[in-house]
Amino acid sequence: MAGAFGADLVQKIDAQSKVKSNAGNFFEDFFVGMQIIHPTPKTITEGDVALYTGLTGSRYALFSADRFAQDCGLESAPIDPLLAFHVVFGKTVSDISLNAVANLGYADGVFVAPVYPGDTLRSVSEVVGVKENSNGKTGVVYVRTSGVNQNDELVLTYIRWVMVKKRDEGFPAPETVIPELSDCVPADSLGMPMMDAEGWDYQLAGSEHAFEDYEVGEKIDHIDAFTVEEAEHQIATRLYQNTAKVHFNQHEQAQGRFGKRLVYGGVAISLARSIAFNGLANAAQIVGINGGTHVNPLFAGDTVYAWSEVLEKADVSEGFGALRLRLVATKDLPCASFPYKDADGKYLENVILDFDYWAAIPKRT
Amino acid sequence: MAGAFGADLVQKIDAQSKVKSNAGNFFEDFFVGMQIIHPTPKTITEGDVALYTGLTGSRYALFSADRFAQDCGLESAPIDPLLAFHVVFGKTVSDISLNAVANLGYADGVFVAPVYPGDTLRSVSEVVGVKENSNGKTGVVYVRTSGVNQNDELVLTYIRWVMVKKRDEGFPAPETVIPELSDCVPADSLGMPMMDAEGWDYQLAGSEHAFEDYEVGEKIDHIDAFTVEEAEHQIATRLYQNTAKVHFNQHEQAQGRFGKRLVYGGVAISLARSIAFNGLANAAQIVGINGGTHVNPLFAGDTVYAWSEVLEKADVSEGFGALRLRLVATKDLPCASFPYKDADGKYLENVILDFDYWAAIPKRT
Amino acid sequence: MAGAFGADLVQKIDAQSKVKSNAGNFFEDFFVGMQIIHPTPKTITEGDVALYTGLTGSRYALFSADRFAQDCGLESAPIDPLLAFHVVFGKTVSDISLNAVANLGYADGVFVAPVYPGDTLRSVSEVVGVKENSNGKTGVVYVRTSGVNQNDELVLTYIRWVMVKKRDEGFPAPETVIPELSDCVPADSLGMPMMDAEGWDYQLAGSEHAFEDYEVGEKIDHIDAFTVEEAEHQIATRLYQNTAKVHFNQHEQAQGRFGKRLVYGGVAISLARSIAFNGLANAAQIVGINGGTHVNPLFAGDTVYAWSEVLEKADVSEGFGALRLRLVATKDLPCASFPYKDADGKYLENVILDFDYWAAIPKRT
Repeated sequence: MAGAFGADLVQKIDAQSKVKSNAGNFFEDFFVGMQIIHPTPKTITEGDVALYTGLTGSRYALFSADRFAQDCGLESAPIDPLLAFHVVFGKTVSDISLNAVANLGYADGVFVAPVYPGDTLRSVSEVVGVKENSNGKTGVVYVRTSGVNQNDELVLTYIRWVMVKKRDEGFPAPETVIPELSDCVPADSLGMPMMDAEGWDYQLAGSEHAFEDYEVGEKIDHIDAFTVEEAEHQIATRLYQNTAKVHFNQHEQAQGRFGKRLVYGGVAISLARSIAFNGLANAAQIVGINGGTHVNPLFAGDTVYAWSEVLEKADVSEGFGALRLRLVATKDLPCASFPYKDADGKYLENVILDFDYWAAIPKRT
Repeated sequence: MAGAFGADLVQKIDAQSKVKSNAGNFFEDFFVGMQIIHPTPKTITEGDVALYTGLTGSRYALFSADRFAQDCGLESAPIDPLLAFHVVFGKTVSDISLNAVANLGYADGVFVAPVYPGDTLRSVSEVVGVKENSNGKTGVVYVRTSGVNQNDELVLTYIRWVMVKKRDEGFPAPETVIPELSDCVPADSLGMPMMDAEGWDYQLAGSEHAFEDYEVGEKIDHIDAFTVEEAEHQIATRLYQNTAKVHFNQHEQAQGRFGKRLVYGGVAISLARSIAFNGLANAAQIVGINGGTHVNPLFAGDTVYAWSEVLEKADVSEGFGALRLRLVATKDLPCASFPYKDADGKYLENVILDFDYWAAIPKRT
Repeated sequence: MAGAFGADLVQKIDAQSKVKSNAGNFFEDFFVGMQIIHPTPKTITEGDVALYTGLTGSRYALFSADRFAQDCGLESAPIDPLLAFHVVFGKTVSDISLNAVANLGYADGVFVAPVYPGDTLRSVSEVVGVKENSNGKTGVVYVRTSGVNQNDELVLTYIRWVMVKKRDEGFPAPETVIPELSDCVPADSLGMPMMDAEGWDYQLAGSEHAFEDYEVGEKIDHIDAFTVEEAEHQIATRLYQNTAKVHFNQHEQAQGRFGKRLVYGGVAISLARSIAFNGLANAAQIVGINGGTHVNPLFAGDTVYAWSEVLEKADVSEGFGALRLRLVATKDLPCASFPYKDADGKYLENVILDFDYWAAIPKRT
């Protein structure tokens, strides 16, 4: 079925653009229930892992060392869930957000199954909501995207919504459908790690702090920071096979709103999570994404800092607990004072990311 | 035999430079029939594939996903023929073109056997032509280069010609020998893919368009574009172990003709082919190179666009046809109007590449 | 035991910083005999090898081609000892040199066992000396660091000393302990390659020159050069999971001594060794590090050149000899005249590296 819908979509694009190249979908091309099989499956390899480490500086032992993972009963080091997320997300861009004005948010993200080097991921999406804006020029599209491996097993799924341009402003507005979005993934529906917490080596992981040591309301300054270069975010975004023009085409962007290339939001998330190692070394594995907003744009030359707050704790499996964390990233602003919003509740201009997620962390037991 | 010749060459270089380091060959060092075994064989791995994806943004499913390739009857995703080409080419630079004034062209390129991760490639060359220029300062050297794998099987072969400086302008000109170069590799001598076209998944590949859908004379604007950064082209060119100084040494280039580093032509070819995915998604596999010219130099900061024209079609195997394509790349110039040459038949100044090749594409059958 | 010490250390850090993130150790935190297990073991893969090649341009056949290594009786191409060294070194930074003023030197480095793709390395260190400086603000810490693989086998070990800030200038100076440092690793304690020199292919390696061809006092200009980009050194240094802030945080460095990010010294060593291929192609394998000094800082935009001098020769195994080499790297200064020190014995300002090491090279016989 999804296949058939996908085929229809491809035909429609061709009919519209009258050429073989894809100019992307516009708001009126989307309808609730529309299903899309996205192009270019990707086998995630040790090569991707090396590049991800080189581009993010991630130091979580679970994803860095086979031996560490094997001591926890795994066959080898799994792929960082964020790398899998970016690969699944990247495939959706050419169909969903090539003509996007803004990526508005994420919700209901669950990491269902681990990904190992050699696994091949493909992405499928279903449109779950549409709402035309009052200006008649743009609309919001809600999509449920799922990543599936070579055995047709679901590995991760999430909803995102994005503002997309209309091709023809005269095109009649569709019936508004807005999906119900929970603020938080219920702890009991998280894909908790299937591994032996007894084998977790706290020293090699880089911190003594287990689930029991974190308190709701606790804030952590992650201290470290990375200055982003054009080559770095472009290489990362191409590795994810994300084709959004705003990240790659300076000739066009020079005429645009910012006059320069925009860094893909996923790059900001991964840099912030890498920085968060310093204070959350044992909370390696993201198991759910409750929400995320790219508050302000990130550009090459900016320096990313980050801090975290513990929002909630859930004791959901024998060896592991889950921490619900708010990860805030800033540009050119150290986070010792936990910068976030002003008195009116508006984000500070240096804040670039407000990311709400669940991470698994071993219990001391 | 080749071995012996190679040894002679090395000795000659040392005798001339009186040091252990290699200053490269000059025009008078080359003679027709001279054979060279180039240094540094390279095992191409999943690491190279990841880096190639990150640097080019290539989205051809055949080279991206093991599962996709396996559905076509292959053991795993093969190496993109262009990656293999750049690796084979790169090894020749230290012996052939370290003192080159210009890389003048390619011809008669055939991809004979597929390359898989784990294969080790080495390069051997034979000089097939020499012609001193009237100025007595430079000459043109024609070389047939072949890439050979760990089983001594030929994987690809091509001719290129390059203008090389003379060390000693007083050195007598050699007898002129110019090899016969065909404008186009005959379709029946292409190394067509040995795979099952029935297993080709058009949706995952990203396009419905099969061999039957393309018409001779058809032009395609590939829309997308990439701005090149110094770090990107340097990392790519080093990955290919191509040592040409013009790509890496800003201290020297600052005094040179352009005042900056020149991007390796292979980087332009790979970026253009990556961009060509948008319109040629099923024409993944290059099976022949008829010719190629780097019309104008590419520099970091330039934005690469591309368009293609279908020059010829050949129905050469059961499951696959071959498209002869002209791939034109530009810098800082969108390709909706297919920019190419002016009224006098001269290339427009924004055109950087004119590449004529054969690609295999599945037949709908 | 080391484990217990390591745990003490982590607790102490937390007690001091009163937060979960690690602000690094200060001079008064180190004591002779203190042992540290460093976080984040890393499995070195073909992905790391590809990235190392792309970032350094290394062309030593032994580390580039499985087939070449197999012809010498090895299972596959081993990891370049410098890549292993940087990975082992990188892990020590967060505990040893996060608050370092300067990395003063290396000594007594021995590469004990080869590393292959798939091996997991972790680092352990012991403090072997401390000396407070007369200013009372800083002190020198001497550390013996060892890299250990997944089978708990020692793969490499070295001493380095670094100048570290005091947290509290009032803190009493410790008893001075300075370890005995030999100027040179004895040739008979080098970890010479366990392979068959008969299988060494000089043509594929890129040079005819064997152990017998090098003379003590001989100097070699390596000719080639690389201009360093911010993205390149940052990707390399993150790949090694080296977290020193000075390499990554432009926002902070803009206020610092140089106003810009400092390139990690290991990047300079690897670039210089890659350049040294041109003249030392068969001296691929570093087997000992006698000493090394980062004479002047290297910054993005600088162009690295290098030359070498043969300091000593040792005939230490059946198939291989060892060359003791001085590797000198410069910035923006070609090395045809072997730039080094001025009449007063002071390093020239363009000299960035003075590195004294042993390399194994096959004997002709």
